Amino acid sequence: MTNGTFITFEGPDGAGKTTILSMVAEQLSMAMVTREPGGIDIAEQIRRVILAKENTAMDPRTEALLYAAARRQHLIEKVKPALEEGKVVLCDRFVDSSLAYQGYARGLGIEEVWTINQFAIEKMMPDLTLYFDIEPEAGLERINKNKGREVNRLDLEDLEFHQKVREGYHILLDRFPGRIIKLDASGTIEDVFQQTLEIIKTKLTEKKPSR
Amino acid sequence: MTNGTFITFEGPDGAGKTTILSMVAEQLSMAMVTREPGGIDIAEQIRRVILAKENTAMDPRTEALLYAAARRQHLIEKVKPALEEGKVVLCDRFVDSSLAYQGYARGLGIEEVWTINQFAIEKMMPDLTLYFDIEPEAGLERINKNKGREVNRLDLEDLEFHQKVREGYHILLDRFPGRIIKLDASGTIEDVFQQTLEIIKTKLTEKKPSR
Repeated sequence: MTNGTFITFEGPDGAGKTTILSMVAEQLSMAMVTREPGGIDIAEQIRRVILAKENTAMDPRTEALLYAAARRQHLIEKVKPALEEGKVVLCDRFVDSSLAYQGYARGLGIEEVWTINQFAIEKMMPDLTLYFDIEPEAGLERINKNKGREVNRLDLEDLEFHQKVREGYHILLDRFPGRIIKLDASGTIEDVFQQTLEIIKTKLTEKKPSR
Repeated sequence: MTNGTFITFEGPDGAGKTTILSMVAEQLSMAMVTREPGGIDIAEQIRRVILAKENTAMDPRTEALLYAAARRQHLIEKVKPALEEGKVVLCDRFVDSSLAYQGYARGLGIEEVWTINQFAIEKMMPDLTLYFDIEPEAGLERINKNKGREVNRLDLEDLEFHQKVREGYHILLDRFPGRIIKLDASGTIEDVFQQTLEIIKTKLTEKKPSR
């Protein structure tokens, strides 16, 4: 349908995915970097409803539908046109974040959240998804090191939730074996970056003959 | 699950459903009248995003997801608590409007729009849905009589769309035979009101023994 390649980066905060994403972008011609809501006005308006502090009564299913709505609009207005121009779209988090965080860790159900996202995405699924896997403790330590503080009690309560998120991503690896590739993100940023670049370059070479 | 009864009123504008709904409400004890977004703050915020004039770039699927999100919130914050108090909830338009207008007449697909609405509604489907059926021409004439003007060219272009909406509702009658009852809305308001009241009273009597 399109000439471009749609690549998404997934994993917990602290896995290094955002840093590596921008390092990859520098190495590729025709790269477009984005993340939801991506500066799309309608998607930003939806995000504001989701995040408004006064909206404490928001039901988790309302929230999941709003995320799917914002995703749809970002996809149609920004990702799809870039793919049609033949770009390599590198997107920081996409549908798998909703599946792992809301579907699995928050308990709405992976299949249920997948259903509404299929409506939102139609056939525009990523060609490749890189999942940056790391022990929650290690990810947390990295985040805290960046903030210049030690792990505290609240962080440890968080740990249980992040363990669930990781389990969620591991279920998705089985659910979408062709699309998602797991990377061990515990190494140095430089090492993980090199691995990532190699996987992406292989994917881009693979794609060419068929187009 | 709840002691109340959830009744929705469906059909095109001009069929008289809103008038009849308020006439019915006067005859019932324990009635609560509502319509989406029903004064629910989060649902109103979502509705404002849908209706904002500047949002011309809104994709039809984004819109359908937003309607489902607003529906969820209205259901959880207003309809469900009223049902739990044992009320008879009379709701002016509900899921069938999305299915007939967006799913069928606008072409998104009834089954696709039904899928995201099932996520929004879960098991809280209406106990009874009254569909006020009328020839689009007759409905249009009534609306214009109220406005004190004649049918014009734009109205006639609209006619084709409203014919599609009617086809959509007729498909839903087959899809949900136990739940939706069709009323011929071409008679006088008083006649249609009496039929409506009788159907609702029968439904309310039916429900009692089982609870």
